[in-house]
Amino acid sequence: MNFSLSGIAASNGIAIAKAFRLENPELTVEKTVIIDIEAELARFESAVTQSKSELETIKEQTSKQISDEEAAIFSAHLLVLSDPELLGPITDKIKSEKVNAEFALQETSNMFIGLFESMDNDYMKERAADIRDVTKRVLAHLLGVSIQNPSMIADEVIIIAEDLTPSDTVQLNPQFVKGFITDIGGRTSHSAILARTLEIPAVVGAKTVMSSIENGSLVIVDGLDGNIIVNPDVETIAQYEEKKANYEQQKSEWARLKHEATITADGHHVELGANIGTPNDVVGVIDHGGEAIGLYRTEFLYMGRSQFPTEDEQTEAYASVLKQMNGKPTVVRTLDIGGDKELSYLQLPKELNPFLGLRAIRLCLEMKDMFRTQLRALLRASIHGNLKIMFPMIATLEEFRQAKALFLEEKAKLEEQGVEVSNSIEVGIMVEIPSTAVMADVFAKEVDFFSIGTNDLIQYTLAADRMNERVSYLYQPFNPAILRLVKNVIDASHKEGKWTGMCGEMAGDEIAIPILLGMGLDEFSMSASSILKARSQISKLSKAELESHIETILTLSTSEEVVSYVKKLTVTE
Amino acid sequence: MNFSLSGIAASNGIAIAKAFRLENPELTVEKTVIIDIEAELARFESAVTQSKSELETIKEQTSKQISDEEAAIFSAHLLVLSDPELLGPITDKIKSEKVNAEFALQETSNMFIGLFESMDNDYMKERAADIRDVTKRVLAHLLGVSIQNPSMIADEVIIIAEDLTPSDTVQLNPQFVKGFITDIGGRTSHSAILARTLEIPAVVGAKTVMSSIENGSLVIVDGLDGNIIVNPDVETIAQYEEKKANYEQQKSEWARLKHEATITADGHHVELGANIGTPNDVVGVIDHGGEAIGLYRTEFLYMGRSQFPTEDEQTEAYASVLKQMNGKPTVVRTLDIGGDKELSYLQLPKELNPFLGLRAIRLCLEMKDMFRTQLRALLRASIHGNLKIMFPMIATLEEFRQAKALFLEEKAKLEEQGVEVSNSIEVGIMVEIPSTAVMADVFAKEVDFFSIGTNDLIQYTLAADRMNERVSYLYQPFNPAILRLVKNVIDASHKEGKWTGMCGEMAGDEIAIPILLGMGLDEFSMSASSILKARSQISKLSKAELESHIETILTLSTSEEVVSYVKKLTVTE
Repeated sequence: MNFSLSGIAASNGIAIAKAFRLENPELTVEKTVIIDIEAELARFESAVTQSKSELETIKEQTSKQISDEEAAIFSAHLLVLSDPELLGPITDKIKSEKVNAEFALQETSNMFIGLFESMDNDYMKERAADIRDVTKRVLAHLLGVSIQNPSMIADEVIIIAEDLTPSDTVQLNPQFVKGFITDIGGRTSHSAILARTLEIPAVVGAKTVMSSIENGSLVIVDGLDGNIIVNPDVETIAQYEEKKANYEQQKSEWARLKHEATITADGHHVELGANIGTPNDVVGVIDHGGEAIGLYRTEFLYMGRSQFPTEDEQTEAYASVLKQMNGKPTVVRTLDIGGDKELSYLQLPKELNPFLGLRAIRLCLEMKDMFRTQLRALLRASIHGNLKIMFPMIATLEEFRQAKALFLEEKAKLEEQGVEVSNSIEVGIMVEIPSTAVMADVFAKEVDFFSIGTNDLIQYTLAADRMNERVSYLYQPFNPAILRLVKNVIDASHKEGKWTGMCGEMAGDEIAIPILLGMGLDEFSMSASSILKARSQISKLSKAELESHIETILTLSTSEEVVSYVKKLTVTE
Repeated sequence: MNFSLSGIAASNGIAIAKAFRLENPELTVEKTVIIDIEAELARFESAVTQSKSELETIKEQTSKQISDEEAAIFSAHLLVLSDPELLGPITDKIKSEKVNAEFALQETSNMFIGLFESMDNDYMKERAADIRDVTKRVLAHLLGVSIQNPSMIADEVIIIAEDLTPSDTVQLNPQFVKGFITDIGGRTSHSAILARTLEIPAVVGAKTVMSSIENGSLVIVDGLDGNIIVNPDVETIAQYEEKKANYEQQKSEWARLKHEATITADGHHVELGANIGTPNDVVGVIDHGGEAIGLYRTEFLYMGRSQFPTEDEQTEAYASVLKQMNGKPTVVRTLDIGGDKELSYLQLPKELNPFLGLRAIRLCLEMKDMFRTQLRALLRASIHGNLKIMFPMIATLEEFRQAKALFLEEKAKLEEQGVEVSNSIEVGIMVEIPSTAVMADVFAKEVDFFSIGTNDLIQYTLAADRMNERVSYLYQPFNPAILRLVKNVIDASHKEGKWTGMCGEMAGDEIAIPILLGMGLDEFSMSASSILKARSQISKLSKAELESHIETILTLSTSEEVVSYVKKLTVTE
């Protein structure tokens, strides 16, 4: 029987392949009394050994097919399986309480997991997650249940799962995994972002796929429109094969644009940049024809560690990005933590409304030593490329002045010490708080540039937590209030001879691009994988014509009216 | 030794009197084995009897000197002391475990307190608080420790305390309590608001008063400037006596303005209204010469109960307010819960950022039956006065349209049933979300009026939780971004022939009033006790002159610049 489902289109492309269900194994443990202790210990050791060799294989495959970095999670798992502090109590329990290995393992693991999780420390919580993963694997061997390893997949498949954990996703090999569909998740969930990075079509949040799609069923994933067709008939297959071919043709057209500049139909140039998190991401930026990095999120450098990165470590990371970019503009955002982003080694008080709390520049201006270290590292790296620095979450002019003063102080100190630094570093701000968007004319006199962070700007302007599904109807990028604020920022910057970029999700959006182009946005920064599509779209648009519609768009009443106006304006595909 | 301290000026006026320290008694309980069970039971009964008679006295005094409503808390305490479900287990414990009464009481109470508090239900949590209060009192009697009852104070004193609990504050008799000073709290804390209602001078958040002021020391509380002088010398006393006399003269001048309209020096009329929470507050509004109610917070009607108020109960409350106002404008805000305001009988999911969550109109549009009931009650009450309805937390035009449609539907239904309703009810919105302030021109075409809620507008525009002390530096009413938004709202309303009021803290602020007057604000709504002072201030200001400064003020860069500009403009006192 054929049927179709729909979900959230999370990663472009179309795939047609057999379904591969990634299931959570049934691992129920019962306590039994055992007679032959030696046999039970041997049984446990054998399960551990099997698990280790399995992990070695997965680690090697992940390392080869994906990256050493992604394979590191399995080294951590292997370490757990060699830890006498975990294994000792288990074998002791088998011996002294005469219980089965499954029970001894589960009891001991749960004790450690409970202990680590209660520690309110991200590092220890990750250790708890490692123990949980490893316990599952060993238990599966003890119980004779098979556990699925996505890295072992050697057929072309479409993964069907409730959700994909980070340890699942690192194992996906795009050679075999042609797409995936999950019951939960949204466009910005971990697995959706990974799908776009790997360029695998994906539909997430489809709700009922695990309860309705059988293993081995033929499935079409349409990551362009969020459609899923199960057991398609011949005509449907043909129709999607055609859609797929069109899409791939389009992609190859985009690929031709890789080395070209981004020019509108009427000859106006805008800059298309990428948002990155680590120096490793630069390869992808260049590969997708990025003209700049519009947002380098430095907080990833501070995460997944047990202490602050040193000045040297930071300098090295920043220099690596700048060198790889080879003189192209590189906008680095200073540390943006707090809110939903925590560091395990920096205990911040719990806040009732963390999104309205002490985060980003607010925290940096309070923890000045930490901030000065980052500024020094940026200054030292500056000689390796075209560095621009921006401060996140600026709400008042005083905050910008304080941050800029610290920057100038560190610059002067380094110069005094004879350290070579660039003299052409632009210093700008993120515009993501309504007060700053409203006051853009005043800011424009003192900053070198603006970068509009739409994710936060939308959530504050509409007073709706963008992570809270209950108010998701208020996350409206096309609410005319947002567009008016964006226009105000762009105009203010141009009046002072400065430039404005945008580094939120919106910058790569098909509906948003014509509006932003018409408003005169200078730089668009997006996921690297969206750049070529955007360049292709922009090459077909006339800036002058779009300009003539902006005034009308800004008088519209609702988000819906804006979207339908723009759709009429630029009939797409 | 004389010395001075300073804190937050929380309630105007000056008082000079002896310090009365309100201390938490030391109530350490040890477990002992008792021999004479009968004697221990008698001892316990006697402590209960003494506590009851003390509570009867306090209840009576509170009822006489303050109000029956405030005395109700002690009825609840008396009920606890007659509850066999609490007393039974205590006497059982004394008998069966042969333990002292203090220990039996504490163990049993703690068990109930723990149980009720864990229930995640406000009503049960209040019960836990009652048991805690009562236990303290009985324990004090058992241990022979005296417990202080502010209602028993019969000398003129200034209360010195770490903080005042609601049960402390209801007992304050302004005949004797001339002022108070606390170590913690801010201008909007419960005790500060109460001080302004009772018109007692108060300084809060003074940090070290409990550690530095002795009982019986002569103290001056200057609630005008937040100063505290301990053991003042003769000259200082004389100086403050004079300041006090000036202030009281000013107050009597204000009293003369009670029956006058609010007219600027150049003859322009604005409306001064009050913010209220219950029908009982109307007396104070009339007493302070209020020309309107600019904000009736209906959520109080829903609080401190175990179920929703019925349509009849609501109709009665709204009608009572309208009748008392005798035709004067009365703006009723529909239910604003969620965020920091919870109802014990309405379990809402916990949100990560409740201030950016499903609250106020968002919740009402989801719980339509509850909302329709309130709208019907308002409609039924409308014939008793000059009713205006406003919806809180409107972020998009669609929300307003939906809410207005429900209002019209209920109106049509009532009319069909032959129920008499007013045909001149204005329907407006709170402007407290940046998107709505930005889009005021669009809203002005459809609403009857705006009321700017500055508390929320400031917190969202600067993305800073107004309850979070760590970002309190960003709670800036005079940030030029706020002023620009306010100006935009006022102008937009006037262009469509509508009016704009303001019902946040800012409306009664001495620095804000000249700016708002110059911008053309039509209605100012504040604490009733601020009305006469504001009327006096406005009577000395020229609207035309202030208008000429607005353009300049809106080009200033920072909050500080605005404040100093306005101060220079209107040298006060």
